[in-house]
Amino acid sequence: MDHNLRLRQVQAAIAERRLHAFLVSYLPNIRYLCGFTGSAGVLVITARDKVLLTDGRYTEQAKQEVKGAKVKIVKKAALAAAAEWLKKHASLRRVGFESAHMTVAERAQLAKLIGRSASLVAAPPIVEPLRMIKDAEEIASIRAACQLGVQLFSKLTGKLRPGISESAVAGELEFAARQAGVDQMAFPTIIAAGERSALPHGRASSAPIPAEGFVVCDFGVILAGYCSDMTRTVYVGRPQSDARSAYEAVREAQQAALNAVKPGGTAAEVDHAARKLLYNRKLGEFFTHSTGHGLGLEIHEAPKIAAAQKEVLRPGMVITIEPGVYLPGKWGVRIEDTVVVTETGCEILTACPKDLLTL
Amino acid sequence: MDHNLRLRQVQAAIAERRLHAFLVSYLPNIRYLCGFTGSAGVLVITARDKVLLTDGRYTEQAKQEVKGAKVKIVKKAALAAAAEWLKKHASLRRVGFESAHMTVAERAQLAKLIGRSASLVAAPPIVEPLRMIKDAEEIASIRAACQLGVQLFSKLTGKLRPGISESAVAGELEFAARQAGVDQMAFPTIIAAGERSALPHGRASSAPIPAEGFVVCDFGVILAGYCSDMTRTVYVGRPQSDARSAYEAVREAQQAALNAVKPGGTAAEVDHAARKLLYNRKLGEFFTHSTGHGLGLEIHEAPKIAAAQKEVLRPGMVITIEPGVYLPGKWGVRIEDTVVVTETGCEILTACPKDLLTL
Repeated sequence: MDHNLRLRQVQAAIAERRLHAFLVSYLPNIRYLCGFTGSAGVLVITARDKVLLTDGRYTEQAKQEVKGAKVKIVKKAALAAAAEWLKKHASLRRVGFESAHMTVAERAQLAKLIGRSASLVAAPPIVEPLRMIKDAEEIASIRAACQLGVQLFSKLTGKLRPGISESAVAGELEFAARQAGVDQMAFPTIIAAGERSALPHGRASSAPIPAEGFVVCDFGVILAGYCSDMTRTVYVGRPQSDARSAYEAVREAQQAALNAVKPGGTAAEVDHAARKLLYNRKLGEFFTHSTGHGLGLEIHEAPKIAAAQKEVLRPGMVITIEPGVYLPGKWGVRIEDTVVVTETGCEILTACPKDLLTL
Repeated sequence: MDHNLRLRQVQAAIAERRLHAFLVSYLPNIRYLCGFTGSAGVLVITARDKVLLTDGRYTEQAKQEVKGAKVKIVKKAALAAAAEWLKKHASLRRVGFESAHMTVAERAQLAKLIGRSASLVAAPPIVEPLRMIKDAEEIASIRAACQLGVQLFSKLTGKLRPGISESAVAGELEFAARQAGVDQMAFPTIIAAGERSALPHGRASSAPIPAEGFVVCDFGVILAGYCSDMTRTVYVGRPQSDARSAYEAVREAQQAALNAVKPGGTAAEVDHAARKLLYNRKLGEFFTHSTGHGLGLEIHEAPKIAAAQKEVLRPGMVITIEPGVYLPGKWGVRIEDTVVVTETGCEILTACPKDLLTL
């Protein structure tokens, strides 16, 4: 991770916006820029200085983690400490803040503390556009997380059987993840069986896996800070032809979207490719969410892969492609891969069979 | 959970502030008020209406979960849908929003969408003061989560031995939690051994448990939506007298703080009780964080138990009491209980021995 390069890029962006200082208050952005993983802090960036303000809980941790910035341990809340720091540097008149992350109350508090010594400027996302394009090291990290995800999925299918609870299946998966060095799951594991498979965000519950039906398995790990995300839908029992053909439609829609991922194309085009196929199969109205999202340090980051998203895809973007169809009260199917945009198209990082697995 | 009562309390609060409508955008507040657990939505409350706006991913889930409010499934982002809803209700001129949660960018977007049809009013926390006082059902839920935490701790100590990684210990704990019906841990499990115990937020890592030293074990579960939180510090090997006396000091500081928890007392007084004892033992400078925090639907909620916090304690508040001392590069000790404020003092919900356990 070249933290110095990232910080220089932010310095260039703030110079371009004629800001004298920029307050980074969003923790994933702080981590991206200087490596700090604590739960409280503000990173102040000026043309001359890069200072992470955090509290005494993180003295040791900040010393170990922070690269490219000075660490200042403060007694006050980090935002109040940032205001104080700014007041001591009176030449910094135009101070940008992350308007997509700072709350209205925080902004008001900051303005009060700074007083007339500087003016606050609501800055658009400055760090997120950098984070959207992953460097080689980041792609390697996400690849490792995804490969582990694939290994875990094969263990998971060994545990899936009628009668065992969704939660127990999730527990086995998460235990195996821990044993493989995972700090934390990327989001609450979804194991949604039978009728519950029609809930796109159906967290694993105490409901038992039924004797017959789809089971949507959607999970991700965080390995060395980077997320994976994948979904496979399996069938317990023998699927009827309508279930089988819906599965095939989702699979084809997913492939159509994957085919549409290439540099120069837009996020909306990728979404449209999946949606069009499902409309042609009379399943479009049951595809009730967008096609995907970026991921990296966070499970959801830019770009969104959805209708009306004009973001142009570029090599190094890492996104999910995850169409699904959901028939309320009956069943649902979703198939999801994490992919990296390459010079010519995309590479699937969650390489794992997609033929309908029946158990 | 009496969602109707909670919604009526919010309606009373907004009438008092002469607001015609109040937008609840913070998900834990939405859950508290109407039961919805999805990851996207806005709850609009007026004197007449209570409407949850969410998207198609949550059609089924909202139907199952939401109490006391109508559900409207929308195609747009929930905040944009809320703006549209408000424009259709032109008599609602003063619209409050949660200033502690809405970002500056969201507020700007909302203002643009609403145009001149209404004015936005930055409201102080309205739902949080309600959430701070738990009702009997909530206390029962937190009690159940805490009791499970205590059971899990006794399993954990059976797994702790030199050579096993911190992460493997955490994995065993979390697996047992899943088997007991836990949806999710309340925060990344902290198993911090040897020198790492000096990191107050030392998440379980791949580091092995050393042959000798303190191990800080800080973890919580979420059971039926409510959090538990407890910390015990054990010793692997035979503690020297300095380690033993530091442990005893923390234990006494924790007891002093527990003794200070009573209705009518302030959060600052509780913090002071722990801090004073540690200063008297020449350990005050190593107590680098505040004494505790409220918890409930979230692992950190009001009130803060810290210096300068004038919040008066009231029956039904659920808080943690967790002093600690951390000697960088050497070791750390923390002891934490979750307690409920009663009519006369407090009741410990994480009842579990606090004598120094040596393994």
